[in-house]
Order: sequence, then structure tokens, then C-alpha cells
Amino acid sequence: MPENLIFSKQEYQQRVRKTKEMMDKYGMEMLLVMDPANMNYLTGYDGWSFYVHQGVIVSLNMENPFWFGREQDSNGAKLTCWLPDDCIYGYPDKYVQSRYTHTMCWVADLLREKGLDKRSFGVEMDGYWFNARMYMTLSTELPHATLMDGTNLVNWIRAVKSTAEIEYMRQASQICQSVMQTAVDEIDVGVWEKDVAAKVSAAQIAGTDEFGGSSPAIFPIMPSAERTSTAHLTFDPDRQYQENDVVLLELSGARYHYHAPLARTVYLGDPPEDLRKTADGVVKGLQETLTFIQPGITAEDVEERWREVIAHSGVVKPSRVGYSYGLNYVPDWGEHTISLRPGDKTILKQGMTIHFMPGIWLETYGFECSEPLLVTKGGCEKFIEFPQKLFIKHGR
Amino acid sequence: MPENLIFSKQEYQQRVRKTKEMMDKYGMEMLLVMDPANMNYLTGYDGWSFYVHQGVIVSLNMENPFWFGREQDSNGAKLTCWLPDDCIYGYPDKYVQSRYTHTMCWVADLLREKGLDKRSFGVEMDGYWFNARMYMTLSTELPHATLMDGTNLVNWIRAVKSTAEIEYMRQASQICQSVMQTAVDEIDVGVWEKDVAAKVSAAQIAGTDEFGGSSPAIFPIMPSAERTSTAHLTFDPDRQYQENDVVLLELSGARYHYHAPLARTVYLGDPPEDLRKTADGVVKGLQETLTFIQPGITAEDVEERWREVIAHSGVVKPSRVGYSYGLNYVPDWGEHTISLRPGDKTILKQGMTIHFMPGIWLETYGFECSEPLLVTKGGCEKFIEFPQKLFIKHGR
Repeated sequence: MPENLIFSKQEYQQRVRKTKEMMDKYGMEMLLVMDPANMNYLTGYDGWSFYVHQGVIVSLNMENPFWFGREQDSNGAKLTCWLPDDCIYGYPDKYVQSRYTHTMCWVADLLREKGLDKRSFGVEMDGYWFNARMYMTLSTELPHATLMDGTNLVNWIRAVKSTAEIEYMRQASQICQSVMQTAVDEIDVGVWEKDVAAKVSAAQIAGTDEFGGSSPAIFPIMPSAERTSTAHLTFDPDRQYQENDVVLLELSGARYHYHAPLARTVYLGDPPEDLRKTADGVVKGLQETLTFIQPGITAEDVEERWREVIAHSGVVKPSRVGYSYGLNYVPDWGEHTISLRPGDKTILKQGMTIHFMPGIWLETYGFECSEPLLVTKGGCEKFIEFPQKLFIKHGR
Repeated sequence: MPENLIFSKQEYQQRVRKTKEMMDKYGMEMLLVMDPANMNYLTGYDGWSFYVHQGVIVSLNMENPFWFGREQDSNGAKLTCWLPDDCIYGYPDKYVQSRYTHTMCWVADLLREKGLDKRSFGVEMDGYWFNARMYMTLSTELPHATLMDGTNLVNWIRAVKSTAEIEYMRQASQICQSVMQTAVDEIDVGVWEKDVAAKVSAAQIAGTDEFGGSSPAIFPIMPSAERTSTAHLTFDPDRQYQENDVVLLELSGARYHYHAPLARTVYLGDPPEDLRKTADGVVKGLQETLTFIQPGITAEDVEERWREVIAHSGVVKPSRVGYSYGLNYVPDWGEHTISLRPGDKTILKQGMTIHFMPGIWLETYGFECSEPLLVTKGGCEKFIEFPQKLFIKHGR
């Protein structure tokens, strides 16, 4: 166990207790957690080793979860997890990306040894980290187990943040503020896009004078010009910003992998009338929607409110306008739980953290202005104070 | 189709032809490619949208593959793929991370519309991007299709690089050289680890005076002190380097997502005798092994040779000593094909690119010194010229 845990051992144990409570409600005796954010949440494990198979297994009949991963990463588990060393299991290197055997054969052997091979066993069916081959192998290797769907079970527990988590998210927000300011300051006609992106990346890691950042779960999304007509492109490595460029910025700070995403838009020159109009409509809609968010309303209520307030502005937004976020690794800082869209009945609670993100992508350009929010006792609070507007720059 | 493709349309079409040839050999009429590197390889698609479900489908009876993804990303496909616009399909936002429906229902509908629902259909069973739920949904929705394992089918085609690809890998290598030099220069007693990591991240994106980089598939692996006893930790965001720190550096440059990974080790002060001995043993083993690599030998031959040359040095390395690398996105720059380890019968060919990576992780520290290599007509060639040694620094 490391000398300095990011959270208290009690906080980690509380998370495990909540996981077991949820498992018990679903009639699930064991849970295989392979999502690196869920692994980190339950154990503290933190390494870029998720490109090989690894996981944490929670069992109702055992006090502590146990970690498994590649043998060469097991020291990393001992250095970052709160678990006792005898809860850390490393598998031999021959299982790594093998054509002849599979890590899930090794996992099945381990479960048989522990007498855990005849249980109802939740797996993250629809996550990034539990693939089809793993499922098929476990099905074959554990004929007496009942595989169940445990997708997002831990993610839902993560949706409400503790005081300590919110503190890290505030620190991430301070980093994000500096990251966004760097981008807005540096973008200018004739400047290489790559040079701004480099400064943005450096600001994400350097953090503040008091603390450092961590690599965000999504690379800097900062397309320019026509590339702003879509949602997830980045800078052009061989292009300089030009007069009349729109530049979208969707950037995050992160502190111990807790995020603070923020989107803003810069225009180099005199923006066309329709872009100004879109910007005004989105910013007004954003501001009015924020006054509406409070505990007790549902995720779909928020989206409906947004649609009402922008109804007369000409802005049309056919995709969800926000989602829950927090602790994460690549490829997404979203938590895959709450979506602000029709049909999502989740009741907002104090301690939930939402990225309200009404991005607009039209045929030839886009506009983004978002806010990361904390649902508070009586409403919601912005994590970041950054002007809500189209940033217009007229060259040096 | 974009004005400037990264490769010629003919090169992309040749890749599709090779994919169809391999599919045909396996008796596979269609292939669903969801790995973002494979999607990029076949179509040019380049966006950070792989956090939602998306893919490319290759069918033996259709000239062009087709792309599907979230509607808001389809403009991105039109802006980055060589495919005609009528090969780009966007799905409605309601399919994104939904509890009520699944993107694979939409895919099955599309295949039925096209009359492609009764074929033998390869899927990337053991990849990161094809999860258990996708498999189960496709199985149910396409009862007349025969699902087959297409894991790494495109990856194996990627293993041999074209002249144009090698050129991008040389550019990535130039970036990596500057990244590693930055790290070695900046690490010193009293310097914040986060500040070196920030400069490293900036150098990865800024590239050279002539061209920019792209975000590598793995974050900067740069642990210090005890954290070097394991393979995949990074910098400590709140720590300054101290006298007698070992610092491992496993860093990459990337150009259009083509990588150049390199590992080196720095010691701050007078290294202990056993670290010097390990370093000497590894460097000697590395150099001798490189003279042995040439077309015609197998991957396991390389590892055997390495084991022979280090046999008397006291160095023990129980994991694979290298792997194929090239084009990739998170979470791995490795290609999941060739592994330098016992049992891998792959015959090395001209144009293959290997990261020879004999990392050593002992109980209290580690040592790394690696080389990215191109297999040439008569041997192999290092992509990067960087001194092969333990870098010893004695403070400012």
C-alpha cells in the first residue's frame, strides 16, 4: 500500500460497500470491473497498463476486492492501490496478446482456485474494456457461473461525488481555466495550429503553481475553419490560422484523472452575422438553462428547458446537450450514465457533476460554449468562471 | 473527399484490396472494422470520436468500404476519408450510450437494407473496440449471418509498411528525438516532474520546424525512484526530482498517428553498481541483437538471440522484448501482431517496423533502453540515433 493515497482508505472502502450494495440488489454475487476508471475508483490503481487485459473482482463474500493484471504491472498495483499485497495477482507474460491462450483462461483458473467459479458474475458487457472474446472465453471456461450484465454499475455509483472528489474537480477546473486562457491568448492569424496545441498540452500537465495536472482522457479538440463543422477533429499539424477562421476549443484540465472540460469558440476577424446569431442564441439558452438546474428535476427536464429557451433563436441541436463527467481515462471523460436528452429519467442530486455542452455543428462551421457544473443543494454551481461569448480577435 | 489526403487514393485502395484478399482466404464475405487505427488505415478517417460506436464495413461484393458513425461525426468522415460521400452513414444521437437500444441494432438494419445480412461476417472479437454487448446484439439481430473472428486481420496487413508510411515514421522519429532530448536535458534534482512532463508533451505536439506532431497513443511514461520498479506509471504531479532518482522515459513522437517510441533511463547522481551492471548488460545485449535482425529470421529467433547474449550478464527478462508498431490511437502504439518472444513464428520481412524494448523492472528500480527499427533488405536500421546508455546527471 502506498504511503500517500489520493483518497482515504475509508473512502475507498465506502465505494466498495456501495458497489456490493448495488450488486446485491441485482442478485450479482461477483463483479468483474475492467474499466480503468472503475478500477481506479475502487482500488486507487493508476497506470497506463489498460492496453493489456486487467481488472478488479469484487465478491460479496470477500471483504476486499482483488486486482489482476500483467506480472510486470503488479508492482504498480502495489504502489498505487490501497489493497493488501495478497490481493494483487500478476499473470505471466505469455498471456499478453496471445494467439494461443487468453487472459480469461487465467482468470477462470484463479476463480476456480478460489472456489468462485459457480456464482452469478457481472461483467461490463457494453464497456470499452470487456470485449467479445473475453465474454466467449469466460462463458466456456466457467460453465457453472451465470454471466450477468454489469455495464456501468460502478459508473452509476461514481455519478454522485464526495467532498474529496469535488475538491480534485475544483483543482482540475483551475487547470482548465489556465488551459483555455492559453488557447484564447495564443490563437491568432499566422500562428501555427500545432504551436497553440503544444502550449495547450503543456498547460494541461503543468497545472498551477501549486499542483500538477494529469493527461486528460481526450486529446485537445481544437479544429479550425471547415473542420469546425463536425464534433471531434483536432488541430491541423501543418496549418497556420487564417483570417476569418472559426476555432472550436473543447479542452479539459485533469487532476488525478478527475476532469474539468470546457468548450469555447474563437473567431479571427469580423464574424458573419449568422455565427453571431448562433452564438447569441446558444449563450442565452445556456444561461437560462443554468438557472433552472437543481436537485429533483430530471435529466430530460433540463434538455426540454433548453429546447424551450432556444425555440425562437433559430438554433437547432439534435443531439444530447450534456452528460455526467468526472474520473476517467481515455477514450472519454464522460461517465456513460446521465445524458441530458429526451427519455433520460435520472433525477438530479446534490453532488452530481454535469458537462452542459450545447455544441452546434452546421454545414460549414460550428459554435461551442459549455459549462461544467456541480449540482448543489439548491441549484447548480459553475466550476469555472470564463466569459460566455464568441471570442473575437482582430489580429496582432 | 478532402483536398489533401495523407496518402494517395491508390494507396488506400491497395490496402482495401489486401484486406479483401485476406478475407477471401478466410472465407469471410464481410468484415466489420472498429479499431480506429484500422479504420484510419483503410479510409483515412481521423477524429477522436471512437468513444462512441463507429466502424468501417468491407464487403467482398462492393468496391468501396462504407463508414458509419454518429451523425455529428459524419462531416468529419467526409472531411478526412477518401470515400465518396454516399459511403458515409451517420446514425441518430439516440443510439449514443443508450439504455434502450444499441448501435448494433442500427448497423443490422443498415445491413438488411443493403441485403448484406446473410453473409459470413468477420468482427474484431479480441480488440478494444468490439465489446461483448455488440457481439450479442449482432448475433440476435442477424440470425442468418455467420459471425467469424476477424481479430487483427487488418493489423497483420499493417505490419509491412509502404514507402510513404516509412516516411511518416521517419518524421515521427525526428519528433521523438527532440522529445527525448528535452526530457534528458530538463530532468534534474529539484525540478518538478510535472514541468518536465509538460515540456515533453509540448515537444510531442510542436514537432519540428518543418512539421507538427500528433498526440501519441500512450501518455508520457516517466516514473521516478521506486515507481520505476514497474512498467507503466507516469510522473508524480506533486514531486520534485531528488538526488539518486532513477527516471525511466518511454516516450514517442507521432506524425499523423504514426509512432516512433523510444525508451531511455536517467540517473541523478552516482548510480549504484548493480544499476550500472544492468545498464551495461542491457545495452550490450541490445547492440548485439540488432546486428542479428534481418529478413528471414523469426520473431522468436530474435528473442532467443537476446537471451543468449545476455546469458552471462545476470540480466533476466521474463517478458517479450519487442513488438510491431506503427499507426495507432489510444490505448496502445503496438500493433498486436508480432511479439519478440518464444513461440512467435512470424518471419521478419523488409518493411516491418519493430520496437525492440528490453525493459527491466526489478524490485526497487528499473532500466530501459530501446530502439525502434525498420527491417531492411539486408538487416535492420535504427529509426533514431540517440546514445544507448544510462544517462548520468550530477546536478546543475
